[in-house]
Amino acid sequence: MNTSTLDAMKAIVGAAHVSDSISQRNLHGQDQSSHHQVLPDVIVWPETTAEVSAIVKYANANEIAITGWGAGSSLEGNSIPLKGGIVLNFGRMNKIVKVHEKDFQVTVQAGMFYKDMNVELAKYGLFYAPDPGANASIGGMIANNASGTRTVKYGATRDNVLGLEVVLASGEVIRTGCRSKKQSAGYDLTHMIVGSEGTLGLVTEATLNLEPIPEHYSAVVASFPTTEIAAETVFAVIGSGLDPAALEILDAESVRYMNMRHTDLPEVPTLLMEFHAATEASLKAEMKLVEEICHDLGATRFEVGVGREERNRLWEGRHSLGEILFSVYPDSTYLITDVSVPISNFPTLAAYTNQLFKDMDVKGALFGHAGDGSLHTVNFAPKDSPAEQEKLQIFNDHVVKRAIELEGTCTGEHGVGIGKKKYMVFEHGEGGVDAMRQIKQLFDPKNIFNPGKVIDF
Amino acid sequence: MNTSTLDAMKAIVGAAHVSDSISQRNLHGQDQSSHHQVLPDVIVWPETTAEVSAIVKYANANEIAITGWGAGSSLEGNSIPLKGGIVLNFGRMNKIVKVHEKDFQVTVQAGMFYKDMNVELAKYGLFYAPDPGANASIGGMIANNASGTRTVKYGATRDNVLGLEVVLASGEVIRTGCRSKKQSAGYDLTHMIVGSEGTLGLVTEATLNLEPIPEHYSAVVASFPTTEIAAETVFAVIGSGLDPAALEILDAESVRYMNMRHTDLPEVPTLLMEFHAATEASLKAEMKLVEEICHDLGATRFEVGVGREERNRLWEGRHSLGEILFSVYPDSTYLITDVSVPISNFPTLAAYTNQLFKDMDVKGALFGHAGDGSLHTVNFAPKDSPAEQEKLQIFNDHVVKRAIELEGTCTGEHGVGIGKKKYMVFEHGEGGVDAMRQIKQLFDPKNIFNPGKVIDF
Repeated sequence: MNTSTLDAMKAIVGAAHVSDSISQRNLHGQDQSSHHQVLPDVIVWPETTAEVSAIVKYANANEIAITGWGAGSSLEGNSIPLKGGIVLNFGRMNKIVKVHEKDFQVTVQAGMFYKDMNVELAKYGLFYAPDPGANASIGGMIANNASGTRTVKYGATRDNVLGLEVVLASGEVIRTGCRSKKQSAGYDLTHMIVGSEGTLGLVTEATLNLEPIPEHYSAVVASFPTTEIAAETVFAVIGSGLDPAALEILDAESVRYMNMRHTDLPEVPTLLMEFHAATEASLKAEMKLVEEICHDLGATRFEVGVGREERNRLWEGRHSLGEILFSVYPDSTYLITDVSVPISNFPTLAAYTNQLFKDMDVKGALFGHAGDGSLHTVNFAPKDSPAEQEKLQIFNDHVVKRAIELEGTCTGEHGVGIGKKKYMVFEHGEGGVDAMRQIKQLFDPKNIFNPGKVIDF
Repeated sequence: MNTSTLDAMKAIVGAAHVSDSISQRNLHGQDQSSHHQVLPDVIVWPETTAEVSAIVKYANANEIAITGWGAGSSLEGNSIPLKGGIVLNFGRMNKIVKVHEKDFQVTVQAGMFYKDMNVELAKYGLFYAPDPGANASIGGMIANNASGTRTVKYGATRDNVLGLEVVLASGEVIRTGCRSKKQSAGYDLTHMIVGSEGTLGLVTEATLNLEPIPEHYSAVVASFPTTEIAAETVFAVIGSGLDPAALEILDAESVRYMNMRHTDLPEVPTLLMEFHAATEASLKAEMKLVEEICHDLGATRFEVGVGREERNRLWEGRHSLGEILFSVYPDSTYLITDVSVPISNFPTLAAYTNQLFKDMDVKGALFGHAGDGSLHTVNFAPKDSPAEQEKLQIFNDHVVKRAIELEGTCTGEHGVGIGKKKYMVFEHGEGGVDAMRQIKQLFDPKNIFNPGKVIDF
């Protein structure tokens, strides 16, 4: 980075909020994936949308790459500044602008982390439902259309964004959408931006849909003889009209890992569910129906979590799965697969993936948001074995190919980033990718925004 | 239309499926709004996507306007062929391609009418939830992001489209999205097309999310002393965590009109609700909670509809409201307002609109999907009084302006069409509209697709 850029950044946000130290460059050169680190030249922490606009204007005029940064918790290299340049860290733009309590909405700056936001919102009896697990920033969640365990009932990020403030490549600031839930006034710019991974513009503020914290809820754990039967149960539960707030599948391996720290469950294929209800009586009736369905389909064990503590323990186990796996394989690189298919194809995909573990002799575990057809594995290979590491890529290629053949997608919730670019034509066809390329060219003619992600042009 | 176009169309679809008769041109020159009729030059009924592609290619090469046609039930002039040219009627592309029963999805051609589709889907215990009232075509619903009474629980069209087949201006056919519920693979072309009113491309096929037909449901009618108290109740019901499948508000006038044919309700502000549940016990518990909430807030009457017949009668009344109004004012032109705001602003908007009826001495009724903050009025003026008709436009201007000030939108569900174009800059700002204009220019450089709608360029 030439000194003029550094000076220009200092002039915009003040010298205290710019850094080109090697430690900061290192921190902002890598996300939570195993993609290779690439260092940015400078990191800048703006405080206002006007400052973001000025930074973008400078970057565009000088054709310098600019990559937004939230929590750095992405899983596909999404926030790695592939072309160096400026990383724009939203850490100082981390405030709730307004809680619209009576509308079940919040307007929030992009740099706020969603778990921190939910702590604040709890005071109003409200919460933001999409839960990627890691304490991601709202801007990052919007960039990658993040979702999680609760999406089966409440939708993904895409389904919960009502409006955005976006800085375009020219530095112009636009507002998309509005605070009405129903909107039919022209092209859906909001959803054009959600999931665009910071390649079309930088989101500075968002208005999000919230949910009332449920009065009554219960977690359910059901054990099954096979993954296929567990997956059949997923269909039966949803088909009954029950509206689970989470419907997770865990293979025997995943349960074994969870048991290392948090739980004491039979190490067999398991469904972990949660139900939210407005009344205790309706919750009870629904629990009874779930139990009947599970038993009818051949559950070997059925347990209703009673109360908050038990439920939290279960979810802590589920959410710690990655962390436990990383500690079990300390000297390994890992690869997290993230595909999603229509739910009826989930058993086929799960069986295929389980077989692949055996056939390729790859270490790892399979789990997923089965209620959405979303499947993950975390796979490990020793750091000192390039051959084993290469196998992880091949494993991923196979799983992605199978998922797309099963009318699904190469990424359900982690985004394209670096790792999934190569599958885009296979999934969308040349025509679809070409339409995306033209949109990128329209919004970012100089290719300054997070270059090298989603699509090449 | 020169004969060469007519011949070209005949060569593509066969002479039997092309018409330039005055009766057909009349039929395809007007929708259900009061916007002025404009005749197309020729109407063509393709049977396959390949034929649609060939027609579009011809239109693009010869710079002839081409407007998609479904049921002609739009309410803002959306399907009126403002620049004449070709109307492409999807009436022969009206088949279910596949019911994905185990995924709660259907793939359907754009020309199928949604009520007809739901009759078919009922055999599988499934239904498509967005319900605009009129028997709209799926393509038309997608074009206008149509919604309706059930959107409060199940979302609008936008929330229920998983993937599309689209013919672009070049004649190229692309497929957007896939059949997975979770999708994060690149720019959201699907939602770029939904709500674009046939101005960016023509949708030929769609994969839609379905719902299981609820095992147990009940309609509720509650009467209130004022519209404001009724609107407060809307907030309380949603805030309780109850998940109504419909939450409609009717003013005293609307109830009076409904009573003319279908119902016998107190002629006061009224909430009409519906609840869906997986078990009878949970439905009962929820009904009890709704009743408590309504009484606490001052409902003067509370009635739970028992069984299918009573419920159907209520909804028939609600859905016939427009029809009844038209019969009461036979020699009038009418204007249907369609705005939407955050739900907490609904009482303010409703009070403002009611006052406007009085202040401007305009005839009509107010109702709306209060659970979504969506408000309609149907207003009437004698056909032979241009001054009274002009008043309807002024009324609409006031209501739209107030809705946008209240952080809402000029159109919640009818789309921009002709009538709402003038409000786009006020709602989205110059920057937002400019971004839309550029997208239009990118996808349709010769402005052949439904020219003159959504935005001008």
